[in-house]
Amino acid sequence: MEVIKISHNTTRINILTAALDLFAKSGYDATSVTDICKAAEISKGAFYHHFPSKQSLFMALMQDWLDMLDVGFNMARDSAVNIPEGLIGMAGMTGQVFEAANSGFPILLEFWRQAISDPIIWQETVTPYLRYLNYFEDLVKDGIKEGSLDESIDPKVAARLLISFAMGLLMQASFDPEGVSWEKVTKSGMQLLMNGLRRSE
Amino acid sequence: MEVIKISHNTTRINILTAALDLFAKSGYDATSVTDICKAAEISKGAFYHHFPSKQSLFMALMQDWLDMLDVGFNMARDSAVNIPEGLIGMAGMTGQVFEAANSGFPILLEFWRQAISDPIIWQETVTPYLRYLNYFEDLVKDGIKEGSLDESIDPKVAARLLISFAMGLLMQASFDPEGVSWEKVTKSGMQLLMNGLRRSE
Repeated sequence: MEVIKISHNTTRINILTAALDLFAKSGYDATSVTDICKAAEISKGAFYHHFPSKQSLFMALMQDWLDMLDVGFNMARDSAVNIPEGLIGMAGMTGQVFEAANSGFPILLEFWRQAISDPIIWQETVTPYLRYLNYFEDLVKDGIKEGSLDESIDPKVAARLLISFAMGLLMQASFDPEGVSWEKVTKSGMQLLMNGLRRSE
Repeated sequence: MEVIKISHNTTRINILTAALDLFAKSGYDATSVTDICKAAEISKGAFYHHFPSKQSLFMALMQDWLDMLDVGFNMARDSAVNIPEGLIGMAGMTGQVFEAANSGFPILLEFWRQAISDPIIWQETVTPYLRYLNYFEDLVKDGIKEGSLDESIDPKVAARLLISFAMGLLMQASFDPEGVSWEKVTKSGMQLLMNGLRRSE
């Protein structure tokens, strides 16, 4: 995981906030740099000082979101007694993010949608995806090594299962935000999942 | 599950095929009825004879996809000795759909994206989602009843976990189609998941 860069630049933050709001409301394609400048109350010159293009702004939004996740994941891992407990902690943390950030889901769908139709965004989306795949694969290997996870598990399959779980819950929460406590479902779901991965006594 | 209506109308099928292709390539918003008519080599009159609007065509595409899933799910369930084996069968079947239908994923993202920004499509998307939620909840209840699944499982949480798994794999397969055999991952992933849900001996 990388060191987190926290931007203290107010204009940059205003642009990001306005863009996130517009992308979520109208979609990426329908939102122009002009719209973003109007909403952020800045000039086009100021926009292009911070971002060479709408696409680079879009990727900065995604990076901020991923950085936030990384901080939470590392905290959960470091404070747990073993890997399964760490994963359950991550799930609890992610569940809170779900509850808090309902407005963030449309933009996540935009990321994926754009990733499929735009090779540059695709590359930028697949890179962190592959990083998470490695991250969870390593977690599962560590769990097998420490004896908390079953040694018959294929770490690559388990990593994809964990990522499916996270992505699928995000999807469900995105179109059924009020249907259930997603924090509770995420945590209980991860506990069920861990029952299947834990080393049997 | 509903009875499947199979359309023998060639024009309708031509429209659906052309639209699926265009939506996947250019996105829903950027595709016009004119574009679809051109690609399907039909008049606008013929289009509106079959579909009152682009939106209704879009929803028909989704319905066809869901009908296909239902057929597969019911087959897998009916041919299995118990619920966990049925779910593993469904996963194997879904995995094959993943492998075969790479081009279908962008359209799936479009469904979800549109569902969030359009209340009518949202309703149409949430209805089958809730139906699947009930379907899997009932499957899990049946599994507990027959003694194949652990009675401590909350069927509602397990149903959301199963749907997460399916949605999350679809998402991953959509931007990493060549990364791995999704059929294998889907089946092995479901086996791991079932380890956590099965009644312990």
